[in-house]
Amino acid sequence: MTRRVLLLNGPNLNLLGTREPGIYGRTTLAEIDATLVDEARALGASVLSHQSNVEGELVDVIQAARGTADGILINAAGYTHTSVAIRDAIAAVGLPAVEVHLSNTQARESFRHESRLAPVVQGRVEGFGPASYLLGLRGLLSILSQEKRRRR
Amino acid sequence: MTRRVLLLNGPNLNLLGTREPGIYGRTTLAEIDATLVDEARALGASVLSHQSNVEGELVDVIQAARGTADGILINAAGYTHTSVAIRDAIAAVGLPAVEVHLSNTQARESFRHESRLAPVVQGRVEGFGPASYLLGLRGLLSILSQEKRRRR
Amino acid sequence: MTRRVLLLNGPNLNLLGTREPGIYGRTTLAEIDATLVDEARALGASVLSHQSNVEGELVDVIQAARGTADGILINAAGYTHTSVAIRDAIAAVGLPAVEVHLSNTQARESFRHESRLAPVVQGRVEGFGPASYLLGLRGLLSILSQEKRRRR
Amino acid sequence: MTRRVLLLNGPNLNLLGTREPGIYGRTTLAEIDATLVDEARALGASVLSHQSNVEGELVDVIQAARGTADGILINAAGYTHTSVAIRDAIAAVGLPAVEVHLSNTQARESFRHESRLAPVVQGRVEGFGPASYLLGLRGLLSILSQEKRRRR
Amino acid sequence: MTRRVLLLNGPNLNLLGTREPGIYGRTTLAEIDATLVDEARALGASVLSHQSNVEGELVDVIQAARGTADGILINAAGYTHTSVAIRDAIAAVGLPAVEVHLSNTQARESFRHESRLAPVVQGRVEGFGPASYLLGLRGLLSILSQEKRRRR
Amino acid sequence: MTRRVLLLNGPNLNLLGTREPGIYGRTTLAEIDATLVDEARALGASVLSHQSNVEGELVDVIQAARGTADGILINAAGYTHTSVAIRDAIAAVGLPAVEVHLSNTQARESFRHESRLAPVVQGRVEGFGPASYLLGLRGLLSILSQEKRRRR
Amino acid sequence: MTRRVLLLNGPNLNLLGTREPGIYGRTTLAEIDATLVDEARALGASVLSHQSNVEGELVDVIQAARGTADGILINAAGYTHTSVAIRDAIAAVGLPAVEVHLSNTQARESFRHESRLAPVVQGRVEGFGPASYLLGLRGLLSILSQEKRRRR
Amino acid sequence: MTRRVLLLNGPNLNLLGTREPGIYGRTTLAEIDATLVDEARALGASVLSHQSNVEGELVDVIQAARGTADGILINAAGYTHTSVAIRDAIAAVGLPAVEVHLSNTQARESFRHESRLAPVVQGRVEGFGPASYLLGLRGLLSILSQEKRRRR
Amino acid sequence: MTRRVLLLNGPNLNLLGTREPGIYGRTTLAEIDATLVDEARALGASVLSHQSNVEGELVDVIQAARGTADGILINAAGYTHTSVAIRDAIAAVGLPAVEVHLSNTQARESFRHESRLAPVVQGRVEGFGPASYLLGLRGLLSILSQEKRRRR
Amino acid sequence: MTRRVLLLNGPNLNLLGTREPGIYGRTTLAEIDATLVDEARALGASVLSHQSNVEGELVDVIQAARGTADGILINAAGYTHTSVAIRDAIAAVGLPAVEVHLSNTQARESFRHESRLAPVVQGRVEGFGPASYLLGLRGLLSILSQEKRRRR
Amino acid sequence: MTRRVLLLNGPNLNLLGTREPGIYGRTTLAEIDATLVDEARALGASVLSHQSNVEGELVDVIQAARGTADGILINAAGYTHTSVAIRDAIAAVGLPAVEVHLSNTQARESFRHESRLAPVVQGRVEGFGPASYLLGLRGLLSILSQEKRRRR
Amino acid sequence: MTRRVLLLNGPNLNLLGTREPGIYGRTTLAEIDATLVDEARALGASVLSHQSNVEGELVDVIQAARGTADGILINAAGYTHTSVAIRDAIAAVGLPAVEVHLSNTQARESFRHESRLAPVVQGRVEGFGPASYLLGLRGLLSILSQEKRRRR
Repeated sequence: MTRRVLLLNGPNLNLLGTREPGIYGRTTLAEIDATLVDEARALGASVLSHQSNVEGELVDVIQAARGTADGILINAAGYTHTSVAIRDAIAAVGLPAVEVHLSNTQARESFRHESRLAPVVQGRVEGFGPASYLLGLRGLLSILSQEKRRRR
Repeated sequence: MTRRVLLLNGPNLNLLGTREPGIYGRTTLAEIDATLVDEARALGASVLSHQSNVEGELVDVIQAARGTADGILINAAGYTHTSVAIRDAIAAVGLPAVEVHLSNTQARESFRHESRLAPVVQGRVEGFGPASYLLGLRGLLSILSQEKRRRR
Repeated sequence: MTRRVLLLNGPNLNLLGTREPGIYGRTTLAEIDATLVDEARALGASVLSHQSNVEGELVDVIQAARGTADGILINAAGYTHTSVAIRDAIAAVGLPAVEVHLSNTQARESFRHESRLAPVVQGRVEGFGPASYLLGLRGLLSILSQEKRRRR
Repeated sequence: MTRRVLLLNGPNLNLLGTREPGIYGRTTLAEIDATLVDEARALGASVLSHQSNVEGELVDVIQAARGTADGILINAAGYTHTSVAIRDAIAAVGLPAVEVHLSNTQARESFRHESRLAPVVQGRVEGFGPASYLLGLRGLLSILSQEKRRRR
Repeated sequence: MTRRVLLLNGPNLNLLGTREPGIYGRTTLAEIDATLVDEARALGASVLSHQSNVEGELVDVIQAARGTADGILINAAGYTHTSVAIRDAIAAVGLPAVEVHLSNTQARESFRHESRLAPVVQGRVEGFGPASYLLGLRGLLSILSQEKRRRR
Repeated sequence: MTRRVLLLNGPNLNLLGTREPGIYGRTTLAEIDATLVDEARALGASVLSHQSNVEGELVDVIQAARGTADGILINAAGYTHTSVAIRDAIAAVGLPAVEVHLSNTQARESFRHESRLAPVVQGRVEGFGPASYLLGLRGLLSILSQEKRRRR
Repeated sequence: MTRRVLLLNGPNLNLLGTREPGIYGRTTLAEIDATLVDEARALGASVLSHQSNVEGELVDVIQAARGTADGILINAAGYTHTSVAIRDAIAAVGLPAVEVHLSNTQARESFRHESRLAPVVQGRVEGFGPASYLLGLRGLLSILSQEKRRRR
Repeated sequence: MTRRVLLLNGPNLNLLGTREPGIYGRTTLAEIDATLVDEARALGASVLSHQSNVEGELVDVIQAARGTADGILINAAGYTHTSVAIRDAIAAVGLPAVEVHLSNTQARESFRHESRLAPVVQGRVEGFGPASYLLGLRGLLSILSQEKRRRR
Repeated sequence: MTRRVLLLNGPNLNLLGTREPGIYGRTTLAEIDATLVDEARALGASVLSHQSNVEGELVDVIQAARGTADGILINAAGYTHTSVAIRDAIAAVGLPAVEVHLSNTQARESFRHESRLAPVVQGRVEGFGPASYLLGLRGLLSILSQEKRRRR
Repeated sequence: MTRRVLLLNGPNLNLLGTREPGIYGRTTLAEIDATLVDEARALGASVLSHQSNVEGELVDVIQAARGTADGILINAAGYTHTSVAIRDAIAAVGLPAVEVHLSNTQARESFRHESRLAPVVQGRVEGFGPASYLLGLRGLLSILSQEKRRRR
Repeated sequence: MTRRVLLLNGPNLNLLGTREPGIYGRTTLAEIDATLVDEARALGASVLSHQSNVEGELVDVIQAARGTADGILINAAGYTHTSVAIRDAIAAVGLPAVEVHLSNTQARESFRHESRLAPVVQGRVEGFGPASYLLGLRGLLSILSQEKRRRR
Repeated sequence: MTRRVLLLNGPNLNLLGTREPGIYGRTTLAEIDATLVDEARALGASVLSHQSNVEGELVDVIQAARGTADGILINAAGYTHTSVAIRDAIAAVGLPAVEVHLSNTQARESFRHESRLAPVVQGRVEGFGPASYLLGLRGLLSILSQEKRRRR
């Protein structure tokens, strides 16, 4: 059975690749999406991708994942450190979720050290650049496999 | 004269009753709305209800309450603990406001202990499940009655 | 069956109505008691009221509530923010409890923002003046009804 | 007109003079009382003295000062640093109050550096041993004189 | 060459002039806009103005400034103190930015003392009422002139 | 010579054994007292026991221990974390004191991690249930023996 | 009528332009003074300038401003973050004051984030280099104009 | 033998009586000095008074007190909360010192709650207006008498 | 059945009795070991003792206790306050553990007030000198007896 | 060219699979090692594995990695939160490093939220159980590939 | 070439040797100066010494060091912990600086643990009494030698 | 008589000179040792040097210093900020100790600002590179000389 993964990207990630390549690299979000779709297909999964700068829209999309996705891969960017609403949405839909970051947030400004989402996700991957998404996808699929096995 | 109450519900409350019934109970937001409308009518008041997952939309609706509502009943959910914008909106429109919560926020995670809205509302009710809304409505109407009396 | 409610008032609440009416209003504690007794009767409940300035006496009275009351309505006033002993007493007797305050404690001095009782009560009502007691009574009765239903 | 001063002493001050003379001196509380009564008489005032180890009893006595005293001289001892109830009582009775301490509390353990009473008293005297009481009495009478003058 | 300035106003600033004139004055946002447009023209610059109550919309507009504006003048209001997303957007577009506030935020509630935007803007102006915008405009143009000179 | 031990129990400990046996066990305070009396006799000591829910009464009893007891065994329960008055009383009477707790306070809520009495007692025993009292008694007698030896 | 502005510069600002031009630019304090005098004249005002490395001298000069100046423009440099004495002096003379800084203090070391003067000044300008003074002057004159208008 | 008292007044106290009479009263520093001189004479003591806005000058004067004064009466005003230098000077000269304040510093802004001088003075008097100086003088003389007695 | 107790002593406890006898007494670790072995035998238990200055060796020994000991008596000395590794080892082997200290750690430097081990041990004994070990042994055996009874 | 990876496991990880399977799963460290070796071979890399409970031994092994390994994969377990020595060792050898954890440390006790190693590693993976190692290995190889490319 | 060292001593150090010899020893500042001059001569350097109790004077002297000294040896005494002005002066003149203290500041009151100067000096020496100056001088000369070598 | 100095170096200092020369210089630990041995001989002292990456081994070596060394010169590197065990060892052996650091720890990351060893050493030298060891040696010998003189 194909695993359906919802990929969520938060504020300013739509600018990826075109700005500040020194920090965030030259890969665009579209390229990351394409690579993930390919990788997912190779691993027997599908990826549906959504980006928004609006906190509440991210909440909307997470809520809509119930019944349409099996797991969530999320880079909430700036909202990672401030959003109780997104945290509560993830907890509410009850799907396995994995948090990813391009950079190593623990090595940046102190306000980026705390993730409000961390306590409600299963796994976290950060600091590998675009590869963080690929590792996060693999990790999410690994979690989904274990759950399936447990349910049997 | 009929008192007009604006009922505002924040992020994820649209999921009420269908998810995590162990924590939030099985009553849906529509059912809470219906009960409040009935209760309000019995108490000589009307209720207009709005739910949004978007912080800024909640600000919009609060601003629009000027001239169309006599008081605000608000469960800002996750934004309770993070939103200066909603706080400033309540202060700006200058209407009596009452804050309600389904659960006892002081008995949950520490980041839920502080309400950014608390200093700009008149009263607060929490921990009674859906009954929090009914108590909050009665409390708001009680505040509105006192104000009327004071103005005479 | 008549629900028996223990109403507990902490230090300085015996002065209600006669001092600082600007802040606490002109209603005396006796008047609040009388109104609550009437309201309770109308709702099929009875109220037994006790006020003390002594922390340990409040503990004594809470302990005595086992077997003689079905729920506790408490305004611990100044002890709200300092008393582990009252908190432990409420937890020990295991009765549903509701915390009420005349003023909105979250809008006052910062030392009043933390309630040591909050984690052991079911619901909290604050900021409605004497109406806080009435709302708290209704809330407590609502909790007691749910418990009865659950036990059947 | 004779000014009536209520002198309040908190927990363990009844042991004065008989224990730990190295820290608190050899003067007993009775001797301090006697000296204060004499000094007050010389200054056209009277002193009524009360000591209790029970926080709530100190609240009772402060409440009873309304109508029977013109000002309060208080050494709340250990309750100085913990009692919101005594603070609220002083604020409630609305009489001028002066806080005294035998030792310099700011030079002792850090938990003695904060006085919960300080924001509701007019003046504070500490560190002069028994003389703190005499200076506090003079200070309180000075405040009462100014109030009288202002009222004319 | 005409300098193009993007003027951004955050939540509740659309209410300017019509509410709480005691704090924020009687000048409307439209009047501030008009004055800025005039002043800018006199200084050889143009102003494009946008107001939104939605955090993510402000992020959208900042992102769109790349290529269409030379600098940003921003009063993020309530989001000043909470938004990492807006901060990251300003850093991402890499345009000179100036932060303005009508009131002196350092003289208000402590949660307004920290600006999440401050580390990514060049200059800050606060406390002059509507004149803060005019001073901020001048300051931004001064920064833009220096940059031009440096590039030559 | 028989060593006289004052055993002091603070608020809610009178409920031991009859409530929350899951946490505090099924042994009553009377049973603990009886066991201690027996154990003390076997060890050549006597035990005088007192329980009170009133902070000030505990202060009274501690003060009265001068001349009537050789050491103090105290479980101040909720007052452990809040009472400067009891702390000062123990310091004032100058008798060796041992602090005991049924549960391991360091493994419970963070507000129970600090004991205001700890700096003025000689030894502390916690987490062994009723056995904490027996160990505390032995520890106190061991301290008293050493003192006696030192005085010779 | 000519508005008289007292310009105050604190410690190390006398070195401006000759040291650390990378941070503080190549403009000397004398040049800033000259520019301000010209600008003030053009705006119908006069500027009297004073620099000192001594905290108490700055206090002296502020005190002397009563009767000789209509407003204060101050860059207290290092004393900004430590001086209660200068703060109290500004509050004592009761003249409108504007705080300026060459650099954006909020983007530097954390000990520079707090200004002890901020709560007693009307407006604040920072981060524009020498232009901060010009903007601060305009802002101060704008405040003085409003005051004059209000007094009429 | 005449006791010689050094009276030290810190920054802005030279403005007493002429500014902010609402807070600090209408008594000038000269009047306070005169009253103290009289009072001191009546009590068999002399007073030498010094005021400075410069922290280091206050240090100079304190150092010079060795051999010329028997005790120090000090209102360090704004330096109370910031000056380690004055604290060290008082400790270095080793004379008994009393700290006085016109207002009750504990009832004002939080940064005034800590006195850096408190741990090195014997006594503290605050909140009595100009009477604080008189009480402080009496307290200092009381301390000096006790020292004399002890030395015999 | 003989209960096997692992006694673990951390860094610097090998110096006991030979250094700083004023603080730690004159009893050597060997003497404590011997007394414990005797006492254990009398109580039907055996003691195996190990001391190390190396954190990781203490971890090794705790791990080796699985299958060879029934309970752990540990004085981790300096590692008490810093070692997550020892804490995790105790939690991992799942044996009942009792923490002992010669001195009353709560009455010493503040960095000794927190024990990283406290949340994973059953009981704690401190402040009785070498007797702490004996009391800790008795406490541990009491816990082991209860466990045995519960398992039946 | 084969990439050489040093796999380091800290305290108590040698117990994996045999204890607390509810938390850490039933996979042993040997099994994880074996899987990693296989996976590495498939990805053209080799893995050298080392486990120690001794902080300093982990430092030794990291130091020895210079010249013998191309990157470090480390689960420092309990030392993650306390070891500056390991952090400094990683920084000193200057090899790319990836930090992995079996559990989601951000969702556990607060003392596990801070990793002292985080600022000196490139990437971090946590919460996927044994899969964290596989993802970390892939991430580390991805970083090594990028470095190689950059050097060309 | 002779190295010119500016030796700066802050408040109260002029009292050295004549007061509190128990803490600061019996060596006077003049003796320390003389020893340093001799030692410097032996090491091919000269010392110019200045002491002031006034913070701003120390700033003046540091500023004047440009061109007249090659390095600064400073014991800022009480200003060490409070002065941003002196810190900024040292940074502004850009000369190598060494901070010395007679006592070990880290072993004294906690407010002495932070040095505001530390981040702008090259080296620090403390706790050796007058020898701290000699060691600091040698250290400063060592730094100056390295700089010279680097410049060649 | 020859003074015997134990030189202790903590984790990663064995890498000195071969790694990160930009920060730590190109001098190896062996070279530092050799220079110190020479310098010591010139000053009539001997140096015994030990380096370890293991915290407990450093404790062992410090303990062994009793009777074999007259003073300790220690650079505990990463353990400086975390080790209570090393601190207790230094206190236990009771030898004069001097703490040295190559870099100025107060100018680096904030977790390096606190030294757990500082309160138990006599002197501290930091920031002079390898010269810190030479200055520390001289300082330690100066302390030993004073002790000798005092004992006579």
